[in-house]
Amino acid sequence: MMLLDQPLTLLASGGGAESLAGVLFALLVIYTASKLGGELAVRVNLPAVLGELVLGVLVGVSGLGLIRGDGAFIEILAELGVIILLFEIGLESDLKELLRVGPQAALVAVTGVVAPFALGTGGLMFIFGVGVIPAVFAGAALTATSIGITARVLADVQRLNSTEGQIIIGAAVMDDILGIIILAVVSGLASRGEVQPFQVGGIVVAAVGFLVVAIAVGRWAAPYFMRVVNALKTRGDLLIASLLFALGLAYIATVIGSEAILGAFAAGLVLAETDKKETLEERLRPVADVFVPVFFVLVGAKTNLGVLNPFNPQDREGLIVACFLILAAVVGKVVTGLVVFGPPVNRWAIGVGMVPRGEVGLIFAGVGSASGVLPPSLDAALIVMVIVTTFMAPPLLRLVFR
Amino acid sequence: MMLLDQPLTLLASGGGAESLAGVLFALLVIYTASKLGGELAVRVNLPAVLGELVLGVLVGVSGLGLIRGDGAFIEILAELGVIILLFEIGLESDLKELLRVGPQAALVAVTGVVAPFALGTGGLMFIFGVGVIPAVFAGAALTATSIGITARVLADVQRLNSTEGQIIIGAAVMDDILGIIILAVVSGLASRGEVQPFQVGGIVVAAVGFLVVAIAVGRWAAPYFMRVVNALKTRGDLLIASLLFALGLAYIATVIGSEAILGAFAAGLVLAETDKKETLEERLRPVADVFVPVFFVLVGAKTNLGVLNPFNPQDREGLIVACFLILAAVVGKVVTGLVVFGPPVNRWAIGVGMVPRGEVGLIFAGVGSASGVLPPSLDAALIVMVIVTTFMAPPLLRLVFR
Repeated sequence: MMLLDQPLTLLASGGGAESLAGVLFALLVIYTASKLGGELAVRVNLPAVLGELVLGVLVGVSGLGLIRGDGAFIEILAELGVIILLFEIGLESDLKELLRVGPQAALVAVTGVVAPFALGTGGLMFIFGVGVIPAVFAGAALTATSIGITARVLADVQRLNSTEGQIIIGAAVMDDILGIIILAVVSGLASRGEVQPFQVGGIVVAAVGFLVVAIAVGRWAAPYFMRVVNALKTRGDLLIASLLFALGLAYIATVIGSEAILGAFAAGLVLAETDKKETLEERLRPVADVFVPVFFVLVGAKTNLGVLNPFNPQDREGLIVACFLILAAVVGKVVTGLVVFGPPVNRWAIGVGMVPRGEVGLIFAGVGSASGVLPPSLDAALIVMVIVTTFMAPPLLRLVFR
Repeated sequence: MMLLDQPLTLLASGGGAESLAGVLFALLVIYTASKLGGELAVRVNLPAVLGELVLGVLVGVSGLGLIRGDGAFIEILAELGVIILLFEIGLESDLKELLRVGPQAALVAVTGVVAPFALGTGGLMFIFGVGVIPAVFAGAALTATSIGITARVLADVQRLNSTEGQIIIGAAVMDDILGIIILAVVSGLASRGEVQPFQVGGIVVAAVGFLVVAIAVGRWAAPYFMRVVNALKTRGDLLIASLLFALGLAYIATVIGSEAILGAFAAGLVLAETDKKETLEERLRPVADVFVPVFFVLVGAKTNLGVLNPFNPQDREGLIVACFLILAAVVGKVVTGLVVFGPPVNRWAIGVGMVPRGEVGLIFAGVGSASGVLPPSLDAALIVMVIVTTFMAPPLLRLVFR
């Protein structure tokens, strides 16, 4: 529990008041950037999260310098933001629906994970001479399609319920799960500082095993859990009980050496199958609205885009790497359209629909830069990749659906 | 912004992962204590907050030692909890209703602030030889009746809408405002470490002036603010915009040397007069459910009841002080019934109805102990005072209403 040496006083004088004022100021900047960025983005038909990210860059180290991501409180608040985000993503997923869209979506998902990972990691290692750990990390960051952004773009072009739309969404949900497992694996590798086949196997088993056991035990325990929730009489009954469930699984995940977000995601998947799903989603939304923007703005704020200055000869390699990552990210997903079998579908639409990266890609960038695995230029290149793939998806998708 | 020397990594290995795990563990303990305590309390017809406080004592330094209140993150989270609590209390208040219940309630409120303050501070200084600053702080902690607890108890005995009930609620709202102003004043004094008439005047003027200006400017700005909110299109529009308003006023309050909670309370009072009041209350509730229990559990957890051990001769004076504070708290409020004028009412009921202390009393104890103004025995005595006055109110009120 005792994380820090300097004691903080509560609401009081001296250092304590200064720290509260500092936190309040940081929150004011974060929420202003988040709202302003989100509102500007949706007005030009882009996802709100992109605006939050860009405005985060603007108020952060690359811009005004109002937020540098060096406040311990804001950092942990952002970590809780990711945990709540993954809890919400899990809650909005549908295990049964996933099994229904079935084999086509699964093939698209696996191809869409393997291809960009192989292209990205291989290219970084063999063309650019990047070390194996950062190359694996950056390659892994290319794997997860953003469910939120993809669904939003499909809805915008009114193709959410087409065959192509269903396959894309199914595959996006699956590669989100794969992406979160991969994150648990690569950040396990990153913390050990080397890649040994035995360890990789161990971390994969821990991550997958945790997810399977958590979901299995969770599904078994859910009815008892709901009986307890129904007996509660105080404010915040369902919300706090469910949050305890999610934080509990997140805590167990960290204790067994996996990722907290894996636990939160599993908790969401389990509670999504209960009859309280809708009520919980509604209660969780305001809480997510408060916590999640802290993460997205902070990812942008901590990104030093200055390391990709085109006018600085030293930075040109970083820029070339960024262009390569964007290429690998786009090609690696567009090829997924080729593996679709069965009745004829718009293969280009499926490939293009898988292109936008979002939350999970940003989580990779955030974790990678905070743990020191990703050098600043690679971190900045990943952020640029997320921004560019998300910017290009809506116009490209309109084009291929024509 | 940079509060702490030790850098924390995001979701990553080593110290960072440990800190996230530590925060997750603390949150698990806090929410479990809060739910368990709240649920047990309401089952024996006591307010939930009392159960949270008692369970907080149980898991804290006086009990299991699971939470010691020494984690910087949890401390600041608790501070944000009080800010959100006061924003919510402000939002649930009604300026116009306050003006309507009028002079009787105002007289009860002022008497109910002056009498326990004079009794408590005077007694501590002249009977027990306590220094002027801690005596003023402890006396001030006796002033605020708990709106939440009082309303709840009146509803339980079905007298909320009686004349007595209306006077009690009106007076409770007013003395909450007085209490928060007094808190701003005494913690300003505490941070300066001495009492000088000129300074007292300055702090009172700053606190009252801030509240008046914030409400006046806020009422003027509210229509423009609502026009902006209505134009927003992204998730969390009303909630985050309103939170920005509250955090902004809280920040300004800290910057001008007053209390953050005063700003949050003013923001709540202003937004309570808009047509979005109900929607905002509904959206804010889950957020308050997440933040506020951290404060109440932490106040309990940090209280060292061990300093009031009746079997330790050294602690006997602390115990006597606690008994004196309870007496001053009860007598100081019961006498308020005597000042009621106009048509005959149940004077005993009004006096007894003002007895329960709650949130604001706990805020005094929290601020006082964190700032080092209150010695542990006086801090523990205040917590005991809050617990005892709240425990005794329901049966006493049933008795006098008979």
